[in-house]
Amino acid sequence: MGCEISRAGVEEARNRIAGHVRRTPSIRVAAADLGLDLTGEIVLKLELLQCAGSFKPRGAFNRILSAGRPPRVLAASGGNHGVAVAYAARALEIEAEIFVPEIVSPVKLARLRALGASVQVVGRDYQDALDASQVRARETGALVVHAYDQPEVLLGAGTVGLELMDDAPDLDTVLVATGGGGLVGGIATAYAGAARVVSVEPTRSCALSRALREGRPVEVEVGGIAKDSLGARRVGDLAFAVCVQHGVTAVEIPDESIAEAQRQLSAALGLIAEPGGATALAALVSGAYAPREGERVGVVVCGCNADPASAVFGR
Amino acid sequence: MGCEISRAGVEEARNRIAGHVRRTPSIRVAAADLGLDLTGEIVLKLELLQCAGSFKPRGAFNRILSAGRPPRVLAASGGNHGVAVAYAARALEIEAEIFVPEIVSPVKLARLRALGASVQVVGRDYQDALDASQVRARETGALVVHAYDQPEVLLGAGTVGLELMDDAPDLDTVLVATGGGGLVGGIATAYAGAARVVSVEPTRSCALSRALREGRPVEVEVGGIAKDSLGARRVGDLAFAVCVQHGVTAVEIPDESIAEAQRQLSAALGLIAEPGGATALAALVSGAYAPREGERVGVVVCGCNADPASAVFGR
Repeated sequence: MGCEISRAGVEEARNRIAGHVRRTPSIRVAAADLGLDLTGEIVLKLELLQCAGSFKPRGAFNRILSAGRPPRVLAASGGNHGVAVAYAARALEIEAEIFVPEIVSPVKLARLRALGASVQVVGRDYQDALDASQVRARETGALVVHAYDQPEVLLGAGTVGLELMDDAPDLDTVLVATGGGGLVGGIATAYAGAARVVSVEPTRSCALSRALREGRPVEVEVGGIAKDSLGARRVGDLAFAVCVQHGVTAVEIPDESIAEAQRQLSAALGLIAEPGGATALAALVSGAYAPREGERVGVVVCGCNADPASAVFGR
Repeated sequence: MGCEISRAGVEEARNRIAGHVRRTPSIRVAAADLGLDLTGEIVLKLELLQCAGSFKPRGAFNRILSAGRPPRVLAASGGNHGVAVAYAARALEIEAEIFVPEIVSPVKLARLRALGASVQVVGRDYQDALDASQVRARETGALVVHAYDQPEVLLGAGTVGLELMDDAPDLDTVLVATGGGGLVGGIATAYAGAARVVSVEPTRSCALSRALREGRPVEVEVGGIAKDSLGARRVGDLAFAVCVQHGVTAVEIPDESIAEAQRQLSAALGLIAEPGGATALAALVSGAYAPREGERVGVVVCGCNADPASAVFGR
């Protein structure tokens, strides 16, 4: 692919996408304010404030700009990734074709179309849409932007880690939600051992955790309240290799802890995180990750695209 | 009062309240993302992420700590100020008595009680509650924390300005919503002429704008969608003097622009700001403040305590 999976590669991505994505801020919040039975503060990386509502535009812009800004791009996703590719294409004044399965919600379809993307509704599930998108890519020559398993996408996602490092250079541990693994793989690449990176997955959607246990990416069943953003049936090969290389560990959490983390973010900060966006924090809520006394913990809050109808308010 | 209304006074306040309030972040957002017909970026100071959901705890902590952390404090307000004083008292393990008029909503009463405050429901409007609180203060010797017209309260609010200056040292202009004037007065004191500070008020609640026109604080009628947080009938004497000293100018905006600014914050960032919290941005939405080409503008988003039932979603 012509780009190296290394911190230098993440730094190149940061330069490439600067001006196209937001430099999102972090905030230190008392652990007690988040309902946690811990002393001290937690650093929250507020990536839910990113363009298009999640970290995904970082990888999309990096992939498209690395390829020399081709006239058309293509992605399969009715969720954050599809929205991010449509957003990036509009910003770069190129065409985006987004493949989604029939189960996609009308709200998401409308959002993709509002961003000017051509939307193809194909097949019963994500795999059908992905297969159709690959056929189409061969026909049109459009650049495929994968949701996670491409070097440029993973490196782009890793820029979240560089920013967190700048904001809070002293972190011992960074908690990151995992779907296909682009974000955790990118952040582990950025940190390169400078902090412990812990992957957090819903018990019902745990492709990386299973892969680490079995020593290779395997197919898993996916379900639960974060399925729309974290429901990858198989972790990316790149992310898996990076996570093994950097000693990323994985924890699993129940859906109830995700909902509770959403409530805590709303009560403490007025923030509306989607389930996937609150999943990393849920590792502290559930106790699946228990920091030792004085451990400095960062949590990536990676998306806000909650369905307003299902938003959980705590104030 | 023993404290000077100067930048040095704001710096002292910052040191005093550090560790009690959050150091809130800023974010640079493309003006176009906020639906504005402007080029370049706007710096948003995300003070809606503050403890208790608004900037008010800064002044409350500064007042209480300056007074040597007395055993009991008292305030009149069913809104952000009352919540902030109750929050600060709980954190400092002292007693808070909060006076509210009968019109206060059950949700706000419940929130004050949840924070452990003793709540006194007295009289038909804010003035009645304020009068009763003053009688009570003389009886009990509790420290009165005014919502805006005390030096420590204004200086505490001014710490918002110091942080914004650190995050974005090159701003030409800072837009600030005004109710009683504590926030705009504090920020003008912090900047001390280093940037243009512009007060933004709803047309239906414009105590500072009227005072500046008439050369002295005067009584105004108050109403409109931001009344609960910005509806001061008379601007504070301290804030008025500071605004005159530092050449603060004032603009007025219609309620529709406040609602539109709320929608834009939700659509662009997923943030739920209350009407008063979106009022400064509304000056750009309405065009009441029109930056010249290349002008670097900061906007203080000062509160998020929207009634969830009335939240405006744009995504």
